[in-house]
Amino acid sequence: MKIYFSGSISGGREHEAIYQHLVARLQAQGHNVLSAHVADPVAIEHEKDASPCEVFERDVAWVDACEAMIAEVSTPSLGVGYEYGRAVQSGKPVLCVSRSGLRMSKMITGNPAPNLTVATYSSEAELDELVDTFLKGLS
Amino acid sequence: MKIYFSGSISGGREHEAIYQHLVARLQAQGHNVLSAHVADPVAIEHEKDASPCEVFERDVAWVDACEAMIAEVSTPSLGVGYEYGRAVQSGKPVLCVSRSGLRMSKMITGNPAPNLTVATYSSEAELDELVDTFLKGLS
Repeated sequence: MKIYFSGSISGGREHEAIYQHLVARLQAQGHNVLSAHVADPVAIEHEKDASPCEVFERDVAWVDACEAMIAEVSTPSLGVGYEYGRAVQSGKPVLCVSRSGLRMSKMITGNPAPNLTVATYSSEAELDELVDTFLKGLS
Repeated sequence: MKIYFSGSISGGREHEAIYQHLVARLQAQGHNVLSAHVADPVAIEHEKDASPCEVFERDVAWVDACEAMIAEVSTPSLGVGYEYGRAVQSGKPVLCVSRSGLRMSKMITGNPAPNLTVATYSSEAELDELVDTFLKGLS
């Protein structure tokens, strides 16, 4: 399945290790993670100097092309907020996951869209289960 | 004019003083700032316990009802990213302002929408000028 993974870039990389785990696991399952670079610190470093317009156009094209979005929302991020909104409004299935114990924006937790799933996790195993359940529901 | 002011809530309140300055100045000019509570620490504190769905529905209704949006994007925020995207996609005039020297998401700086203005400021006076120029362009 074509999956868009959304995670914080400019907003902070505190949760990079979990982005890597999540993306690597999806790829190992055979999914095509369009935005796999978001989990890759070297690619992200290179992209600092990229043209903002090119990055925007590419990412938006990927959001519009994906069959599902998984957004890791533990780190507040303008880009993730934008992408999540775009995907939900266009009717894509979206899973927003956050480390438990963190404050999550009500613009996510209060969104009643039927194609949106919001959940928290306290371990990698719990996260894996959330992702698997979400993807199983789509097939 | 009916203006939606977007600023970080859950994402962090480091720039609260500038939110207050911005909203108070708009109100003194006679504008109706629908989301004036975003600049008010007491209102924000009260809203912590509010129903996420009610907050979401109210804020989205305001975004959809406003004639223009001003978003202060110095603090990464999922909610601000969501609101900015919703307003730009629905064709509203949007001004995104950030303290200069901070890294801004390419999902904002790379957005080619003709109804979006992105700018940085290094003083209150500079911010005031950006806001005045933006609003003048709409009248």
